[in-house]
Amino acid sequence: MADTHRPADDAARALAAGLLEARHGALGTVLAGAPLVTRVGVLRLPGQGMGMLLSDLSDHARALAETPAASILPGEVAGKDDPMTQPRLTLVGHVQTVEKADLRARWLAARPKAQLYFDFADFRIWCLRPDSALLNAGFGRAHRLSPSDLGLG
Amino acid sequence: MADTHRPADDAARALAAGLLEARHGALGTVLAGAPLVTRVGVLRLPGQGMGMLLSDLSDHARALAETPAASILPGEVAGKDDPMTQPRLTLVGHVQTVEKADLRARWLAARPKAQLYFDFADFRIWCLRPDSALLNAGFGRAHRLSPSDLGLG
Repeated sequence: MADTHRPADDAARALAAGLLEARHGALGTVLAGAPLVTRVGVLRLPGQGMGMLLSDLSDHARALAETPAASILPGEVAGKDDPMTQPRLTLVGHVQTVEKADLRARWLAARPKAQLYFDFADFRIWCLRPDSALLNAGFGRAHRLSPSDLGLG
Repeated sequence: MADTHRPADDAARALAAGLLEARHGALGTVLAGAPLVTRVGVLRLPGQGMGMLLSDLSDHARALAETPAASILPGEVAGKDDPMTQPRLTLVGHVQTVEKADLRARWLAARPKAQLYFDFADFRIWCLRPDSALLNAGFGRAHRLSPSDLGLG
C-alpha cells in the first residue's frame, strides 16, 4: 500500500514541538508478546528523547526490560471537539535507562509532584529515543517526522 | 517477581465502568514487530468489547490486520493533579471487525461527529474484546480485572 503521509514541514515541526511538551502520555510496550498501553509521566530531554520515571514493579517496566522497543503518544485531547480532528503525535523507537541522579534537579524542577516517589529505589528513568514519528495534524493531514524534526535526534 | 496487584472489588469495578465511558483512547498495536500507540475514537459495546472506528489507510488498522492482539487505555487525565495519582485502566485483548451497518444508528447516536466519516468505504469498526485488564486506582492501588468485571465478557 502506498504511504499517504506527507514529509515534514515547518508547521508540522512546530505542532510536534508543542505536543512534546506534554507532562504525561500513553506508553506502548510489548509484554509477553502482547501489546500493552499504560499512562506514564514524561519529560522531553532535548537531544536525547522522551524521559519517563517508572517503577520497576510496574508491568510497563517489566515489558521494557524484556523488549526495549516502545512507542509514546504524548499528551491528551484539548477541548471538546471530535478528538479525531485534533493533532496527535506518535513516537516509535527504543528505550534505555539513564542515570537518575544526573537528572534529579532537572526532573524535579519540571515535575515537582514527582518528588513524592523520585527517590524510591524501584524508580528509574527510561528514555525513549525515537526512530520515527507520525504526526496526525487533523483529518487527512498526516506527516512522517524524523528524530531531528523533533529535536530528539 | 510476585504480582503485587489486588483482585477486583466493587469499588474497582465501578471505577473501571466510569473509565470505559471514554469517547477516545490510546490504542496499542504491533506494526512490523514494533509497538505503536495511536489515538482512536472508542465506544463501549456492552457484552462485546470496546468498539473503534478506524480507517483501513491508517497505521493502526494495518497493524491490527497483521496482528490482532491489542491494548486500549481509555480516556485521559482529568484535572491538574499529578496524572500518576489518577485512576487509569488498561485493557489487553484481541480485536475483530464487526459489521458496520448493524452498528450505524447506535454509533452515530453516541458519536454524532463521526457522521463526517462513518460511511467512508475505508472505515471499519473493530472491537477489542479484553482478555484481562489492569486498573491503577492511584499510587500503589492496582487491581487485575477480568472481562466480566468490566461488563465486556
